[in-house]
Amino acid sequence: MEYTLPLEVIQAAHQRIAPYIRHTPLLPLPAFGRDLPTSLRLKLENMQVSGSFKARGVFNNLLQLEPQQRTQGVIAASGGNHGLALAYAAQRLGIRATIYLPALATADRVERVMAWDARVFQYGDSWDEANVRAQEHAAHEGLVYIHPFDADYTLAGPGTLGLELFDDLPDLDCVLIAVGGGGLIAGMAAAIKQVRPTVQIIGVEPVGAASMSHSLKVGRVEALTEVHTIADTLSPRAVSMRTLALTQQYVDAIVLVEDAQMIAGMRWLWRECNQLVEPSGAAVIAALLGNQVDISIYTRPVALICGGNAAADSVFATYGVQ
Amino acid sequence: MEYTLPLEVIQAAHQRIAPYIRHTPLLPLPAFGRDLPTSLRLKLENMQVSGSFKARGVFNNLLQLEPQQRTQGVIAASGGNHGLALAYAAQRLGIRATIYLPALATADRVERVMAWDARVFQYGDSWDEANVRAQEHAAHEGLVYIHPFDADYTLAGPGTLGLELFDDLPDLDCVLIAVGGGGLIAGMAAAIKQVRPTVQIIGVEPVGAASMSHSLKVGRVEALTEVHTIADTLSPRAVSMRTLALTQQYVDAIVLVEDAQMIAGMRWLWRECNQLVEPSGAAVIAALLGNQVDISIYTRPVALICGGNAAADSVFATYGVQ
Repeated sequence: MEYTLPLEVIQAAHQRIAPYIRHTPLLPLPAFGRDLPTSLRLKLENMQVSGSFKARGVFNNLLQLEPQQRTQGVIAASGGNHGLALAYAAQRLGIRATIYLPALATADRVERVMAWDARVFQYGDSWDEANVRAQEHAAHEGLVYIHPFDADYTLAGPGTLGLELFDDLPDLDCVLIAVGGGGLIAGMAAAIKQVRPTVQIIGVEPVGAASMSHSLKVGRVEALTEVHTIADTLSPRAVSMRTLALTQQYVDAIVLVEDAQMIAGMRWLWRECNQLVEPSGAAVIAALLGNQVDISIYTRPVALICGGNAAADSVFATYGVQ
Repeated sequence: MEYTLPLEVIQAAHQRIAPYIRHTPLLPLPAFGRDLPTSLRLKLENMQVSGSFKARGVFNNLLQLEPQQRTQGVIAASGGNHGLALAYAAQRLGIRATIYLPALATADRVERVMAWDARVFQYGDSWDEANVRAQEHAAHEGLVYIHPFDADYTLAGPGTLGLELFDDLPDLDCVLIAVGGGGLIAGMAAAIKQVRPTVQIIGVEPVGAASMSHSLKVGRVEALTEVHTIADTLSPRAVSMRTLALTQQYVDAIVLVEDAQMIAGMRWLWRECNQLVEPSGAAVIAALLGNQVDISIYTRPVALICGGNAAADSVFATYGVQ
């Protein structure tokens, strides 16, 4: 498939969403650490509003709705970061949001979506079942359905993250990015390579859900028969035509990491940076700690920490909630 | 007691420790939030190396040791952030550290101190008992004992945090700071008021461990008969002569917060900023959410998030450690 995401589209999104999102910190590693090259910087997108990069694409969608659509309200199905981002963004823009979660979504997750005033429905055993129901609900009530990935406005979101990196580190030469459905790496790589084609883009995918590696190998979108990973936000069975096309065009390499490595990466980020992240947020650190990527040849490498929505409820319980 | 912490001493410390610590981010609040004034910025000192502001004072101490003292090694007693900071800083400087923890210190805490290569001993029911033993140990082995508070080099540490705020926000006009033994607020207030006396400094202390409020009222250092708070790093029974003197001179007001408010503050910081902090780190947010401080009259207020070493081990267990 031929597919392009023009730089102008990303630049327009960058301007559009700037007042609503965070310009997230680019954290240098501490001096004299021994685990990773001290040239590495961490882009802490786990500190983005709603806890992940998804807020960028969601705001880019909502800010382009017609007044009539804003009045109708928005709806999506997501047990993950897209649902959190949509609930958050809709609340801040004064739009009513309805979120479908799978029946087994944790109380923690349901509570957080509701804390941002979204209407929550739980339905079905999987995202797919919840998603079908959400689309029926959208038609029934005349709500605007916002797809969690595979749409131009959505892909421009992570593109803005690529542009933001250049603001803080104009001479960056390598970026490590986690790969799930591929929207994050596709959008970021499109932005970065159109600005400076020499920057190396390296993807990191779970061994148990290597949907992008598989589709790259067979040369077309093909779903995996099954997936097994603790990184639920990296676990779609298939990438999309858009994300595959941009990855083929712009991504230089993809490496695979095990679940245990991601947990080790989570622990490292907590110990060295006091950042609690979800497994997907630690995937790039996992690849570095496992020496699966050699960044010693770069002078300004960046590791993108994509999401921070870990299951933290047990911590608050430790302190004795009143 | 007359006591001064000259600006030049703080400036020298600022230069001395800069290569070893983090210039921590000053985070704007997200647009259109409803809970707190959007003029507020959060100084995320929970992201300091070792997870709290204590690293500043510790590095300022260690970097002024004689070569002979560095060879001998350092020792301290601390179940909290001073112990973590000393273990971290000593490792990075290639100095051997010995840390005494109370017998009941959590496995989580012991592990983290050991991860930075410190020798760990557990002894006694309280910090005081562990501290006596640490001082005996220091004499026996000829180690350099580093006191956790109440020393000039240590107080200059939080002073550097005051100077760093001016780097990022030259026109700041109000700072909220948690109060335990008072070292943090004393050092910061001394730095800030010597640079610009009009900045308002507001302290926040736990109701159950209001040692500074009590000593201010009676006009001298007087220990509380008992303390009860979940904020262990804010729980000393008494402030010190140095910290009381600087607080009398430079701090404008102190307000009190309940434990349940600090837990609500922790939850807010997690939900809105994806920062997991310890109870002390959320004390200033607790005071704001409880409307105990009115910051609407300031144009550039800052809330200092002083420490992030929450008990996060349960989170990693959730994901099934291999």
